[in-house]
Amino acid sequence: MTKDSTNKKRRVHFNPDNVDIVVEEGANLLEAAIAAGVHVNASCGGAGVCGTCKILIETGQVESTRTEKLSEEEYERGLRQACQSRIITDLTVYVPVESRLEKAILSREGKKVSEALVTGWRFKPPLSKLFVELPPPTLEDNTGDLSRLLRGLRQRYNLHNISADFGVVKKLAKVLRDGHWKVTVTTLITAVKPRTKEWRRPRVINIEPGDTREKHYSLAFDIGTTTICGQLLDLNQGKVIAESIDYNGQISYGEDVITRIAYCQKRGGLKKLQQAVVTTINGIIRELVTQSQVNVEYIGHIMLAGNTTMTQILLGLDPKYIRLAPYIPVANFFPPVRADSLGIKVGKQVYLFTFPSVASYVGGDIVSGIVGAGVHQRKNLTLFIDVGTNGEIVVGNSDWMVTASCSAGPAFEGGGIKHGMIATDGAIEEFNINPPNFEPEISTIGGAKPKGICGSGLINTVAGLLEVGVISQNGKFNTDLPTKRIREGTSGYEYVLSWAAETQTGKDIVITEVDIDNLIRAKAAMYAGCQTLVKSVGTTCSNLEQVIIAGAFGSHINVEKCITIGFLPDIPRNRFTFIGNGSLLGARLTSFSRDLLDDARRVANMMTNFELSENVDFTNNYVAALFLPHTNSGEFPSVSKALAKLPKSKPKRRISV
Amino acid sequence: MTKDSTNKKRRVHFNPDNVDIVVEEGANLLEAAIAAGVHVNASCGGAGVCGTCKILIETGQVESTRTEKLSEEEYERGLRQACQSRIITDLTVYVPVESRLEKAILSREGKKVSEALVTGWRFKPPLSKLFVELPPPTLEDNTGDLSRLLRGLRQRYNLHNISADFGVVKKLAKVLRDGHWKVTVTTLITAVKPRTKEWRRPRVINIEPGDTREKHYSLAFDIGTTTICGQLLDLNQGKVIAESIDYNGQISYGEDVITRIAYCQKRGGLKKLQQAVVTTINGIIRELVTQSQVNVEYIGHIMLAGNTTMTQILLGLDPKYIRLAPYIPVANFFPPVRADSLGIKVGKQVYLFTFPSVASYVGGDIVSGIVGAGVHQRKNLTLFIDVGTNGEIVVGNSDWMVTASCSAGPAFEGGGIKHGMIATDGAIEEFNINPPNFEPEISTIGGAKPKGICGSGLINTVAGLLEVGVISQNGKFNTDLPTKRIREGTSGYEYVLSWAAETQTGKDIVITEVDIDNLIRAKAAMYAGCQTLVKSVGTTCSNLEQVIIAGAFGSHINVEKCITIGFLPDIPRNRFTFIGNGSLLGARLTSFSRDLLDDARRVANMMTNFELSENVDFTNNYVAALFLPHTNSGEFPSVSKALAKLPKSKPKRRISV
Repeated sequence: MTKDSTNKKRRVHFNPDNVDIVVEEGANLLEAAIAAGVHVNASCGGAGVCGTCKILIETGQVESTRTEKLSEEEYERGLRQACQSRIITDLTVYVPVESRLEKAILSREGKKVSEALVTGWRFKPPLSKLFVELPPPTLEDNTGDLSRLLRGLRQRYNLHNISADFGVVKKLAKVLRDGHWKVTVTTLITAVKPRTKEWRRPRVINIEPGDTREKHYSLAFDIGTTTICGQLLDLNQGKVIAESIDYNGQISYGEDVITRIAYCQKRGGLKKLQQAVVTTINGIIRELVTQSQVNVEYIGHIMLAGNTTMTQILLGLDPKYIRLAPYIPVANFFPPVRADSLGIKVGKQVYLFTFPSVASYVGGDIVSGIVGAGVHQRKNLTLFIDVGTNGEIVVGNSDWMVTASCSAGPAFEGGGIKHGMIATDGAIEEFNINPPNFEPEISTIGGAKPKGICGSGLINTVAGLLEVGVISQNGKFNTDLPTKRIREGTSGYEYVLSWAAETQTGKDIVITEVDIDNLIRAKAAMYAGCQTLVKSVGTTCSNLEQVIIAGAFGSHINVEKCITIGFLPDIPRNRFTFIGNGSLLGARLTSFSRDLLDDARRVANMMTNFELSENVDFTNNYVAALFLPHTNSGEFPSVSKALAKLPKSKPKRRISV
Repeated sequence: MTKDSTNKKRRVHFNPDNVDIVVEEGANLLEAAIAAGVHVNASCGGAGVCGTCKILIETGQVESTRTEKLSEEEYERGLRQACQSRIITDLTVYVPVESRLEKAILSREGKKVSEALVTGWRFKPPLSKLFVELPPPTLEDNTGDLSRLLRGLRQRYNLHNISADFGVVKKLAKVLRDGHWKVTVTTLITAVKPRTKEWRRPRVINIEPGDTREKHYSLAFDIGTTTICGQLLDLNQGKVIAESIDYNGQISYGEDVITRIAYCQKRGGLKKLQQAVVTTINGIIRELVTQSQVNVEYIGHIMLAGNTTMTQILLGLDPKYIRLAPYIPVANFFPPVRADSLGIKVGKQVYLFTFPSVASYVGGDIVSGIVGAGVHQRKNLTLFIDVGTNGEIVVGNSDWMVTASCSAGPAFEGGGIKHGMIATDGAIEEFNINPPNFEPEISTIGGAKPKGICGSGLINTVAGLLEVGVISQNGKFNTDLPTKRIREGTSGYEYVLSWAAETQTGKDIVITEVDIDNLIRAKAAMYAGCQTLVKSVGTTCSNLEQVIIAGAFGSHINVEKCITIGFLPDIPRNRFTFIGNGSLLGARLTSFSRDLLDDARRVANMMTNFELSENVDFTNNYVAALFLPHTNSGEFPSVSKALAKLPKSKPKRRISV
């Protein structure tokens, strides 16, 4: 796995997963974990600077440098940074709870979501299966096999000007005869002609002996930077028959798209990341076919939505220029690609379709979400918001759409927060505070002992602290309150959410002023983005008639608390709707309806992207939003009214911008 | 090369080619010759039954069974059948003149041919190169690379709805920036929409940095059963800049399509034949780029015409059902295929187009020839004839065409003839006879000492013998004539063309009654085919307004002599035209003109194929034609008139049918 490897083989046993892998001596321990399918946190992409990939060496030897991310005590206990360790002997290693990515939690239920937002679509998948019975050839009728097939399809289904893939031609003679001239063909129609709006002629992409119409499946995928979700769809019944989710295998090469793009610039980096995501996809496909007992050869199509970087890496296209101003993706519309040519383990005939994107930071996942939510179908003014490391915002309706991406930073995902973590078991999510003694009531995901705090927990905590005056509107602690939970820590004032004795980590879990600052910056970026877009079309946030919140994160937030901190606009609460994974939703629905697939193209074309990074309006809005909920209290009337009831405590310190 | 090979390496040196190859001990000697590029005759495809692959073992040992094809004397001298020999030690072998296929003779000049038969076509190749200069991206104009390119093409060339191959997308970012936003794209347009007759939207198949419009080439190929001809075309100037020809590497696996199809049924057989033809094609491409000093990466397209079997084998499609009644090809229209995926060594972007065919035995080579000859453009009643092992016949004009294939047998190519050979150095081609003493005047191809007799030589000889009464109209020798050249041989009566002392082989070269019978059968099949087709459209041969003779064989025949023996119809001689290699001609012209390419599709569709094998009319015509020139003397008035002047000699024996 590394260049200077010898040829000796070493076995590494990973606990608690109880998984083995044999690698060459000298191989990198983090890469061995990735290869073994053990999910290890590694935010920095193996650069050694984040310290999240600590692994305990139980037996055996590694060659490993100690960086400042590892305390002397930890080093003594046998902890090593996996990314900095080379395997010398057979090993038994233990991945501590802090370093682990738990797969189980990925599929926890979020808020109830609605699919009825997109309406009136016709169930007519782009992929069809047609059974046809042909007359066997005779001396009088000895036209070629292909002409015979196409003639049959013309006569039986009135299909003209069909073309056939070469793969079909290759097996045609055998399949026709094996099926005794009764065969099932799979056709694909994916595009309309721009001028006439007619559908382009179908392609025959597969042929099977006999009548196999009942076995008609496809895959929908959302390729996220962090997680990958896949669904196996029955195209006859129009329903999901299996679903699976896993971490994107690229996660161990870096947490965010920027780190991944940087990794692609290393020699062989792009290829490694491409293989990592394909490995994850293949794992999900295996899981889906196992769950459903569907033979993989009957999967005929893949519809995939992802952000621009994820899409490019999957297709093996260097994302280099996405990161460099003026932020240029290779393409917004990608031609369909044979899944097989990317290493995806499905039949050779399967095409992979990727959703078109709008810009480098507004990708196919957003277009997919918009279509899934039917934003393009309605006249009312809609805000569509998908929050992750980058928050993407769309404002518009059936006539126009503007969009932007805000670099919110990783706070919403628990990143850059002292005890932040992603939303898995043990993450503090619910927070209430008891005004008399300022003691917290917390609950964690999965009900486990607390391990850290996740993004939605952070919002709830900050909102709770603000509501009772533990923090002031500039995010600083009221140090005069009679509670030992507010104290001065190593990085300024902090509030103790959970004492060491009650936590999984054996350490106090705190929220610091720096954490609160980070959250304020994140929510300010998002809100300022919304304001800027809304203003660009001549209106204000208060006029929004609908707010659609997409994304796994979105499914777990508390709208009220989000409004309290000034992240979501202060409008009637019944205008908010959650759609969960909008990207996957759109991928599924377009698999069921070629009309919606065509909509996706139109949506991508009708969106106007705003680059916020150099927009003066955005900068002003951003600075004005660096307050809880906002420096302009008129933006958040209901919150301002509630806060006005609190006893005044003068802000002593200013927030740094 | 064989299954039970050891791993020891053996070197085989082939003389007179002076070529070495290293193979595994136990390898088959014929396959070693093929791998070394040494052309050895092997009519039966290595089955050991034809005895044409005799090789002299000069030093070293082979393990070889003696079959009846090898006399004891030959075996003693060290001759072995290459196909029956396994290599035991290092070898030096000599390929005798009879067993050799000489490449040099392939390109000998034939009759003067005319390209002006097809007229009025527009020089507009399917492949275009377009230079475009794009504005570099800015924050205000940060559309993706692909959209930018397509926008540029739209603005500069008014090209709408273009699609781009994924290979273009893959290198797009780099090429645009390497070229400083000045690039040359290659587009391909190959089909019209059936209803509107508009050309389909172009595909962008390649992109190069800078302005490379001057470097714009393609390849035209004729894939014959025996020989493969290739031309390198300059698509800017519309001319041939290099030409090369070689034996089809499959020839050592069998001489005719039926043997080849049989070979494909062996395990791995199809793959071997596919690789053999690809190896020949690659050799020709190497030769073409060497001749022209054109960089192979600037070759953008391949247009290829071949008979149905050759096309299927090249594409890796089992030709099994071509041989079995009711004779079904996999397809008449093949989708374009990436040349690279077949193993052809050109750029990955190159598509290979094959000419559409009409039936299992009327292939793309005939369609190509028809288009090249412009038969589809004219109103006059035309007979198009391409003679080889199978003779293909087309009768028609711009409104309709009927076609058939006649199993003439190999006589026209020197096959099945006692001293027959293909038309290479030393083959007797011209024949005149001196009536007083019945002594022949012969001349050979290349002026070498006689080695055998080729197809055109056979026609000239039989016509000559008939004209002076050495043979009667039923093909039997007049044994009363005062010449010792007529004698009784091992297989009946024969005429000595050349005495042993004057020949290369050191043996008398003769023409036997069996040979004459074979020729009569071959010409009868062809003429009966013409008659049947002509009659099927309600006319007679005498009404043919034009006869176009295609094929290398056709370029060397003497029309007068062909009429004498009753092979070609007895009509005014100025109605005959030779077009040489019509298949290659059509491949070249369609590379220059997309209109002609579209014509090819129409031609293939408008042709009606007649299966002659079970046609009663054909059988009757055939039997009637088993006479010199014909049992119905009215069919050949000028010949009958000339023959009537000869002294009568009663036929003593009947020809067997």
